[in-house]
Amino acid sequence: MASEEPLVAVTCTAPVNIAVIKYWGKRDEELILPINSSLSVTLHQDQLRTTTTAAVSKDFTEDRIWLNGREEDAGQPRLQACLQEIRRLAQERSSARDGAPPAPSLSYKVHVASANNFPTAAGLASSAAGFACLAYTLAQLYGVEGDLSEVARRGSGSACRSLHGGFAVWHMGECTDGKDSVARQVAPETHWPELRVLILVVSSEKKLTSSTAGMQTSVETSPLLRFRAEAVVPARLAEMTRCVRERDFEGFARLTMRDSNQFHATCLDTFPPISYLNDTSRRIIHLVHCFNAHHGATKVAYTFDAGPNAVIFTLDDTVAEFVAAVRHSFPPESNGDKFLQGLPVRPAPLSEELKAALAMEPAPGGIKYIIATQVGPGPQVLDDPHAHLLGPDGLPKPAA
Amino acid sequence: MASEEPLVAVTCTAPVNIAVIKYWGKRDEELILPINSSLSVTLHQDQLRTTTTAAVSKDFTEDRIWLNGREEDAGQPRLQACLQEIRRLAQERSSARDGAPPAPSLSYKVHVASANNFPTAAGLASSAAGFACLAYTLAQLYGVEGDLSEVARRGSGSACRSLHGGFAVWHMGECTDGKDSVARQVAPETHWPELRVLILVVSSEKKLTSSTAGMQTSVETSPLLRFRAEAVVPARLAEMTRCVRERDFEGFARLTMRDSNQFHATCLDTFPPISYLNDTSRRIIHLVHCFNAHHGATKVAYTFDAGPNAVIFTLDDTVAEFVAAVRHSFPPESNGDKFLQGLPVRPAPLSEELKAALAMEPAPGGIKYIIATQVGPGPQVLDDPHAHLLGPDGLPKPAA
Repeated sequence: MASEEPLVAVTCTAPVNIAVIKYWGKRDEELILPINSSLSVTLHQDQLRTTTTAAVSKDFTEDRIWLNGREEDAGQPRLQACLQEIRRLAQERSSARDGAPPAPSLSYKVHVASANNFPTAAGLASSAAGFACLAYTLAQLYGVEGDLSEVARRGSGSACRSLHGGFAVWHMGECTDGKDSVARQVAPETHWPELRVLILVVSSEKKLTSSTAGMQTSVETSPLLRFRAEAVVPARLAEMTRCVRERDFEGFARLTMRDSNQFHATCLDTFPPISYLNDTSRRIIHLVHCFNAHHGATKVAYTFDAGPNAVIFTLDDTVAEFVAAVRHSFPPESNGDKFLQGLPVRPAPLSEELKAALAMEPAPGGIKYIIATQVGPGPQVLDDPHAHLLGPDGLPKPAA
Repeated sequence: MASEEPLVAVTCTAPVNIAVIKYWGKRDEELILPINSSLSVTLHQDQLRTTTTAAVSKDFTEDRIWLNGREEDAGQPRLQACLQEIRRLAQERSSARDGAPPAPSLSYKVHVASANNFPTAAGLASSAAGFACLAYTLAQLYGVEGDLSEVARRGSGSACRSLHGGFAVWHMGECTDGKDSVARQVAPETHWPELRVLILVVSSEKKLTSSTAGMQTSVETSPLLRFRAEAVVPARLAEMTRCVRERDFEGFARLTMRDSNQFHATCLDTFPPISYLNDTSRRIIHLVHCFNAHHGATKVAYTFDAGPNAVIFTLDDTVAEFVAAVRHSFPPESNGDKFLQGLPVRPAPLSEELKAALAMEPAPGGIKYIIATQVGPGPQVLDDPHAHLLGPDGLPKPAA
């Protein structure tokens, strides 16, 4: 597909975020407006990131998208909603700025290629990183400046939080058009350098309820969810914001666990009930509470999203001992050398007292592997043209 | 221990009950007053019952109690609270009736022996049957007539519901002294002859949080529990009462499942969280919803108490097919001939359509056995002196 007019391509990366005050339930399915505000921690892209290349060319005859090398339907409503929203913003903001007409490229078809550096099998919410990356990349492509919450949100609600590094809040907003349902940074990625994140990837054979379908059923059937959104979350959001700002780890940790538990409680109160936690998840919860009780302090916290994997928060001085406790309780079944991925963690001995306090039969193979990471920055532009996932012909480059 | 004055002994039986609107949380720990009303189904004593003999003799030097043949501490507060309460009632009601002084036996020490006809391993709430039986037996012994709710309740809250056959409601009451916190029959055991109950005894290695400790932590830490008790249960109790009175199985079944799920949701919202359901429990929940979806009607309901065992409600015309579905999904690992206990269930074929609808990998051994039973009557007096668990010497008879 040789072209006289070369394509214009931009490549960016975006991070995964993990909510510590959970989002569950929409008040507007079309605009993706939530029933409560949420707050998240942005994970470091050294370990977990989405990379997206977006390109426009006069020669493209249709919008096309490739995810992890496989072409997907570019007509899917959420992708189209993002495209429509970014084009609308490009026109609005360009005419507001200098009265200039929008660039002709706005009417061109777009090609998008996106890939994660982590296995889908990890069960991490990749749609947030994916749509944040798409919104950010398209904004670069079309020269759109300013807030991109609406663009990312139309793809996946929690994606708007991945537009920020550090700690981000997604304000639910009040307007029916969603103009005030936006993400803001609470604190930058440099704010709490001791904070560490461990992702415990759990073995699971279960088919899960998608979060889109699940939260819709919850809104329709769970009386507890409505109460949570209206009467519990507002105070929790304020308290969590305080904990983050003051780097109050114990407060942060306890509230993170309580909010994860309450989110899963509302899933169970849904009819038919939704269960994302399995026996291994519950063993991890038990392990964390035993570990904290042994130390007489809240040194570790868990949170679970719409799946059995645990995300653990702790401080750098506790990582080694907690990983040793996990290894003791869930002896690796195979690939013992790849059990721990990401940031290096030094081996640490486990005291007999702590072993006794864990009071669990070891469950070999319950955890497949651990990814050690930390708080990280928001989306980034990759200037190196070699980073493009699309070649000069507008098609995915062969995998290296 | 030969005596000139023979002892006076009475033997009674009492049933297990299963709540379909759940009791969880006390507003008074001492008097055992609940934070919400509850409603239960009394199970038939042919399959599940407690038998209790209580005896008084001038020669007894101390209160003593044997449970399933083993002597326990008769000084335990709940047992003493029951004894104190029945003696108080005996004095009150005797003087109110004919002004006669209370029988001298009221000042005698008492011996109690109690045994269940079902294994403790079944994890069924035996304390309700046990304390209902104790209250009823002591009332016979002391000639106390009228309501025994307070006596049974002081032993174990839900025991007051086991004083009635059929369907019973335990009104939470409003008085601080608990006088109006009493159980009443909603409908007798003959009311709904088609109703069947299956107890699916689940394999489990977990140590469980006792319900006494668990509900106290829930009251202290779960915002959802308070909301449930105040804002959800009152309407559900009225609706469940209607479903029972009108024998509306679909309404009864759906509300039973929703209330079980909400109870477990409040356990998960407790901090630290309480998880009574395990992966097998969740597979049973999934099986029931698949079974109902296949039939396009709510033909089966589950409910779970403070443990992983499921109690299933269905109608007589559905029992055989549902048992076949359970057997298909949880192939018996051993003792296949004892997999099904209690009421006879005819073998039934399982259609290929239903097998496909269940959409589960079979989990061999997940269910240890099934007890098939039905709605049954309240406590009974056994007139046959051979039924006594205590011999003429006031000590347990050797097991036959």
